[in-house]
Amino acid sequence: MKSPAWLLLLCALLLAGFDAHAQIDPLPSWNDGPAKQAILEFVKVTTDQANPKFVPPEARIAAFDQDGTTWVEQPMYAQVVFALHQVGMVAEKDPRLKDVEPFRTVLSGDRAAIAKLTMPDLEKILAVTHTGMTVDAFKQIVQDWIARAKHPHFQRPYTELVYQPMLEVMKLLRANGYRTYFVTGGGQDFVRVYAEQVYGIPPEQVVGSASATQFGYDKSGKAVLTKVPKLLLMDDNVGKPEGIHLVIGRRPVAAFGNSIGDKQMLEYTQAGDGARLMMLVHHDDATREFAYGPTSRVGTFPDALMAQAKKQSWVVISMKNDWKRIFAFE
Amino acid sequence: MKSPAWLLLLCALLLAGFDAHAQIDPLPSWNDGPAKQAILEFVKVTTDQANPKFVPPEARIAAFDQDGTTWVEQPMYAQVVFALHQVGMVAEKDPRLKDVEPFRTVLSGDRAAIAKLTMPDLEKILAVTHTGMTVDAFKQIVQDWIARAKHPHFQRPYTELVYQPMLEVMKLLRANGYRTYFVTGGGQDFVRVYAEQVYGIPPEQVVGSASATQFGYDKSGKAVLTKVPKLLLMDDNVGKPEGIHLVIGRRPVAAFGNSIGDKQMLEYTQAGDGARLMMLVHHDDATREFAYGPTSRVGTFPDALMAQAKKQSWVVISMKNDWKRIFAFE
Repeated sequence: MKSPAWLLLLCALLLAGFDAHAQIDPLPSWNDGPAKQAILEFVKVTTDQANPKFVPPEARIAAFDQDGTTWVEQPMYAQVVFALHQVGMVAEKDPRLKDVEPFRTVLSGDRAAIAKLTMPDLEKILAVTHTGMTVDAFKQIVQDWIARAKHPHFQRPYTELVYQPMLEVMKLLRANGYRTYFVTGGGQDFVRVYAEQVYGIPPEQVVGSASATQFGYDKSGKAVLTKVPKLLLMDDNVGKPEGIHLVIGRRPVAAFGNSIGDKQMLEYTQAGDGARLMMLVHHDDATREFAYGPTSRVGTFPDALMAQAKKQSWVVISMKNDWKRIFAFE
Repeated sequence: MKSPAWLLLLCALLLAGFDAHAQIDPLPSWNDGPAKQAILEFVKVTTDQANPKFVPPEARIAAFDQDGTTWVEQPMYAQVVFALHQVGMVAEKDPRLKDVEPFRTVLSGDRAAIAKLTMPDLEKILAVTHTGMTVDAFKQIVQDWIARAKHPHFQRPYTELVYQPMLEVMKLLRANGYRTYFVTGGGQDFVRVYAEQVYGIPPEQVVGSASATQFGYDKSGKAVLTKVPKLLLMDDNVGKPEGIHLVIGRRPVAAFGNSIGDKQMLEYTQAGDGARLMMLVHHDDATREFAYGPTSRVGTFPDALMAQAKKQSWVVISMKNDWKRIFAFE
């Protein structure tokens, strides 16, 4: 016999009674202001059955960019740092790489030369560092790296350089029935390794740039998937809504980004009916993090994007003014 | 203040006390036998924390093929029937199609000729019936068709031709913390239209063959995704584990199929550590459904697959012997 309705109801009432006393601020790292208010208001109206903006639980999908939106992306994406580091690991096993460009440049450690690497160079680097191994082996490689790597400026693990205010938004949304997804230009298999532990986002809720895998058998006859250098999804710009459709199959009702690469994801989110929340993190805090914008190499935030945000009622989050605290370790 | 731990515990105990009385058979459409026992035993050991085969909730992923595993696939996949029907709809708007092969053959209604269409023919048919429209428009087209279409033999909507025993397995798994996924050779966007209503499987848990979409704007400037004839994922055979990795990013612990196209999915599922359940539906009931096997055009089940099932301890479900009832309407 399943639990009777009256018992479920009793428990619901008991629990609701306690939760009604909840007066603790769910966003303690946010200063009061339009950004914080927009989030609280959105959660309130979309979860209130009596409100015309109510969103049924199954449609509560929130999409988050990662680099620059939920963790530090300057001076270089963590995954690029990883790739450059892995060139050294690969070259130890295959010394011939040391004489071949762009690997020779990477191994030289010459920062100015490395900064000038082109996109085709980067593709070659990604091919040798991100493909050729099983998906399980790749996971292990990333785990080993991320446990040891430190950010050059903060001298802390990348996994500590997550924005506490955004963690609070994710938790608040999840506590209200939202499923939080990453929709990142970063590698899907890379982000999946730590997203659950660091952000509470499970592997199946990570949409990212993805190379193909190839099914086969290892020497013992066991079925394995090997990562191969064939791009399936470049999850940036137009690729973000396309990736959302491929993996999620629903339009998000909330989307969070920080750069021109998130524009189409925000447009796609906004194009749905009913309540919508589109937010952009603006890096304007040179003291506590970094200040960058229109012409930055990563996280580019052109004036046209700011103008579009104003025109389309996207909420711009000022890290300087809206965030009381940026990192948990502060 | 959130509900205190003691109150949550009290409620959990109260509810557990009632559920402990549950003696109702969760699989009433199954005859007693090794197949039913394998399912019940799997659920029991993987959800018992004291059992060495316990599977933590986040890893409880079960993958189901659709055609022939959870609904009727003979004499023709529902989606192929849909595609042939749509050729007529498209030809009404674009009469030039009537003079071009393979559309002329489809429109002739000549069953023998239609049965001889080749794979390149089918690709042309899929291109005009499955691409060129927005994803929202395609959803509407499928909804309209599936609400009216009837199976030629059963004279019932396809959505009634689902296997009641498999619905019971899905429900049992979900009640025990499993997330049920479709991993189907069928079109992802096609299956997503009805999977939630018919099977309780939401869009984000449908892995299927997928064509690309293209981001753009409609005449009013609204962001839209248009389906384009570029195959991203052929989710059959080796494509099943590859699709699982792309969309789910975790290895399933249970997998259900019915044909040679499911072989690699079952192998990939089995290659993980700990408890595993691999099952194959065998169509051996010519009276109540269809009996087919080694040389069938759809749902091919070669002798080698049967031999592999025996060798690797995959459980073969005999529709004739294991299923007390096949359809809910019986």
